[in-house]
Amino acid sequence: MNISRLSALSASLHASGLDALALNPGPSLAYLTGLRFHLSERPVLTFFTADRPPVIVLPELEMLKLVGLPYEIKAFPYPENPLEWDGYFKAAASFLSLEGRQIGVEPRAMRILEFGFIKKIAGETECPDASAVVSRLRVHKDAGEVAAMRKAVQVAQEALQATLPSIQAGVTEEAIAAELFVQLLRHGSQPELPFAPIVSGGSNGANPHAVPSGRKLQCGDLLVVDWGAAVDGMISDLTRTYAVCEAGPGLQKIHRIVQEANAAGRAAARPGEPCSAVDRAARGVIEKAGYGEYFTHRTGHGIGMEAHEEPYMRGDNEQPMEPGMAFTVEPGIYLPGRNGVRIEDNVVITEQGAECLSDMPRELKVLG
Amino acid sequence: MNISRLSALSASLHASGLDALALNPGPSLAYLTGLRFHLSERPVLTFFTADRPPVIVLPELEMLKLVGLPYEIKAFPYPENPLEWDGYFKAAASFLSLEGRQIGVEPRAMRILEFGFIKKIAGETECPDASAVVSRLRVHKDAGEVAAMRKAVQVAQEALQATLPSIQAGVTEEAIAAELFVQLLRHGSQPELPFAPIVSGGSNGANPHAVPSGRKLQCGDLLVVDWGAAVDGMISDLTRTYAVCEAGPGLQKIHRIVQEANAAGRAAARPGEPCSAVDRAARGVIEKAGYGEYFTHRTGHGIGMEAHEEPYMRGDNEQPMEPGMAFTVEPGIYLPGRNGVRIEDNVVITEQGAECLSDMPRELKVLG
Repeated sequence: MNISRLSALSASLHASGLDALALNPGPSLAYLTGLRFHLSERPVLTFFTADRPPVIVLPELEMLKLVGLPYEIKAFPYPENPLEWDGYFKAAASFLSLEGRQIGVEPRAMRILEFGFIKKIAGETECPDASAVVSRLRVHKDAGEVAAMRKAVQVAQEALQATLPSIQAGVTEEAIAAELFVQLLRHGSQPELPFAPIVSGGSNGANPHAVPSGRKLQCGDLLVVDWGAAVDGMISDLTRTYAVCEAGPGLQKIHRIVQEANAAGRAAARPGEPCSAVDRAARGVIEKAGYGEYFTHRTGHGIGMEAHEEPYMRGDNEQPMEPGMAFTVEPGIYLPGRNGVRIEDNVVITEQGAECLSDMPRELKVLG
Repeated sequence: MNISRLSALSASLHASGLDALALNPGPSLAYLTGLRFHLSERPVLTFFTADRPPVIVLPELEMLKLVGLPYEIKAFPYPENPLEWDGYFKAAASFLSLEGRQIGVEPRAMRILEFGFIKKIAGETECPDASAVVSRLRVHKDAGEVAAMRKAVQVAQEALQATLPSIQAGVTEEAIAAELFVQLLRHGSQPELPFAPIVSGGSNGANPHAVPSGRKLQCGDLLVVDWGAAVDGMISDLTRTYAVCEAGPGLQKIHRIVQEANAAGRAAARPGEPCSAVDRAARGVIEKAGYGEYFTHRTGHGIGMEAHEEPYMRGDNEQPMEPGMAFTVEPGIYLPGRNGVRIEDNVVITEQGAECLSDMPRELKVLG
């Protein structure tokens, strides 16, 4: 797997005109090499060139991660004293003759900690944004990746199903989130979830990125649950919204609008159309119903190894959808101080159209 | 809490001579402001100056996180289209008259994504490493922080105790890690753990940063469990090493050496002494026993909001230990291809000496 990805990267680097790509630990490094490190106070850098095996600078105590890799990699392991690190980065650069060359980086992942060493190597030469060099590979999911995402959706759906009995008035958001977390693990998610589940009731649900709080659910609340699982390094990212004890006509109405917007967004997903078409379809339903100003975010984002990656489903993104692209469709209505609704599914573009990986009922269910 | 921390930051900034400190999301921002954001493709920057309230640039959809904060903060919320973001960062800089001024950053946390906007503001002026501006506040834990860490240790110990019955020959590292994760949540850890538990048996235990694998435990293995909990935003980070079914004399020996090194390291923790004293005490025991070359990392690291923070217990760190400093003592012996042992405790420096927060038995216990 990594060998074919490294070959694809060589081609992508050739096309980019860059002399090298430098990655710190994160999803792109894991995608290309299978190597995972915590982001810590110890810098880790891997240099990729079009024609030579990758070169990695890393702490000595991480060297065992390189044992048995199915591809060639040259390592420059450094000891614990930070004052000695500079020499190892210089040696790695010299090994690849990268001094003064154009080394691309991923601005979203690269930290100043590692970038400082790259700048010393590049000197006066700019270090361009090379995000596209890897993202144009990562954006096309292969059959194995889609299978893992399908499993990650299934695990997530089963976990929420097992959590639903805990959802009732008087229970805190934190308690439900903890139970959901446990169920995700019990049902087969990797322990490092793509993100901590969002469980937000009543007025907290009006904050799209709320953190589960000690607030107890009350009858008449809507409850937004935004959660996902990780399987074989690929993730799911879903949202369903429930009513606690009862659902007044106003809440039923906004839920129905969001459900229609979600369906319209999913229906607009097909190869050749721009990403903006998905956003326009979903947003159109909400705007037409008079709630446009309460749908405060884009309709979706790419998913794969990360919960947010290319492509982004924004009204201004004319990038065409292509087979293998995977993303969320997650319209919402957020009424500040009152309630929120969001319904989110995971879609993969196919040759003919799109496959929706998630099928948990979207209708407004009354719980508790 | 945040108000007194913001006051302390003002004094720290004054002393630093910097015009401002710019933080992206992470522990230091949470420490100062209580604000938490995922690191995503949407940049978030907060500017701190010595004399004015903080200024934050953030996505519109995160604005609800600012409601009801107990301190003043000026927000520049930007819409979804990345092409429009630049103007909001410029407006924030202009509001604080930061153009061309000296803006410090934390290299370990700051990404190029956010740093690019800072560079446009600072122009030709350097952006120095300002890590010490916040870390010299964070490094002194107050009574509330120590109480939370004590609780995080207790939760972790109870969780591992509940997991021990699962540890037996034939069970995979992954399965034990998943069970431990569940028990951590059941016993009261926040769902976002400080790090994914390390559960590594036999030769995998010789890798200090191993990831739990599908390898099944075998009789005669040593099993390293490195785990922690999070309570009220503060963490614990512990390690114990067990024997599976039986413990041969060679394994008993290296375990005993590490246990003695751990005790020696803890005994060396007291105010006024340099951090290096802890490393020297622990390492001395292992070197004297002839295993010095197999103890491949420093003896410990600071803990608090993060699993790795100041101070670092390295032989070359002459920084004095001071009351309120909290850190790990975690010597180990790693025999490549064979086994590993690590025993890790959490220590807080007090006025008179040191308190060890963890007390789970350290003796080599045979399980399964």
